[in-house]
Amino acid sequence: MIRTKAPRSYCPISLSLEVFGDTWSLLILRDMMFAGKRHFREMLQSDEQISSNILADRLRVLTEHGLITKADDPSHKQKAIYSLTENGIALLPILVQIGIWGRHHVPASDEANADLKTFNRQLELGGPALWKRLMAALRATHLAGKARSTPNSARPAR
Amino acid sequence: MIRTKAPRSYCPISLSLEVFGDTWSLLILRDMMFAGKRHFREMLQSDEQISSNILADRLRVLTEHGLITKADDPSHKQKAIYSLTENGIALLPILVQIGIWGRHHVPASDEANADLKTFNRQLELGGPALWKRLMAALRATHLAGKARSTPNSARPAR
Repeated sequence: MIRTKAPRSYCPISLSLEVFGDTWSLLILRDMMFAGKRHFREMLQSDEQISSNILADRLRVLTEHGLITKADDPSHKQKAIYSLTENGIALLPILVQIGIWGRHHVPASDEANADLKTFNRQLELGGPALWKRLMAALRATHLAGKARSTPNSARPAR
Repeated sequence: MIRTKAPRSYCPISLSLEVFGDTWSLLILRDMMFAGKRHFREMLQSDEQISSNILADRLRVLTEHGLITKADDPSHKQKAIYSLTENGIALLPILVQIGIWGRHHVPASDEANADLKTFNRQLELGGPALWKRLMAALRATHLAGKARSTPNSARPAR
């Protein structure tokens, strides 16, 4: 991790929020975890319409803190491909539980479309066993070939 | 809930982050949950040194979204006392898990003082059963007398 300034405290909640405590970082991880997005352009196209400068900044911070890695995409010469790291994948249960909280406690979530509602209900009903399976699938896709710690040679399946 | 603008999407993760997706809101809830803080002045005195204008703003937003309530403190005529709502208490497991993630994935958390480390280890070892007990204790303190939905007449014990 690259730390440019002293943390405001050593409380692990505070330290975590200094990494992803903003309105965008966890949405980028959501898109990588649940929508299979790996490229900058795909990430720009979510409903929330993140701006390209915020997206670039957040990807940089997430990379610096070791939640994702960036590499040349072997199948697209001019494109970079982003992969989740184990540290990033470890946030999946927290993301799901934030969604569950929203489903139950933010009234506007009733207005989600039917597909999104079904997906969210399944994530909740599946519980920790399902989240574990999803994390295993992400490891297979995002950490493939990284056991020997050669991130640039990774060729994640798409 | 008072909503002043349209949400950026109806994804429950996004909606949740529009409520508490910043570097301060969850720290205020942390102080209310784990340090028993109920008054503005106490909340100003945490290690992270939140500024009074940010604290006032975050308390306002958390109140508007129904995560906390504000009432006159019966024991201090000039003071307001803040209470967690059920919606706010429901975030306890998420907060704890963000802390656990930080403990394992942010190297600086090694520099926490011994008391904080012990407390955090206990929260992790206790698991969901402990978190449930803590939530029950918070309900007893913060929701006392609110069963009849008369928030202003609540007299939380301190």
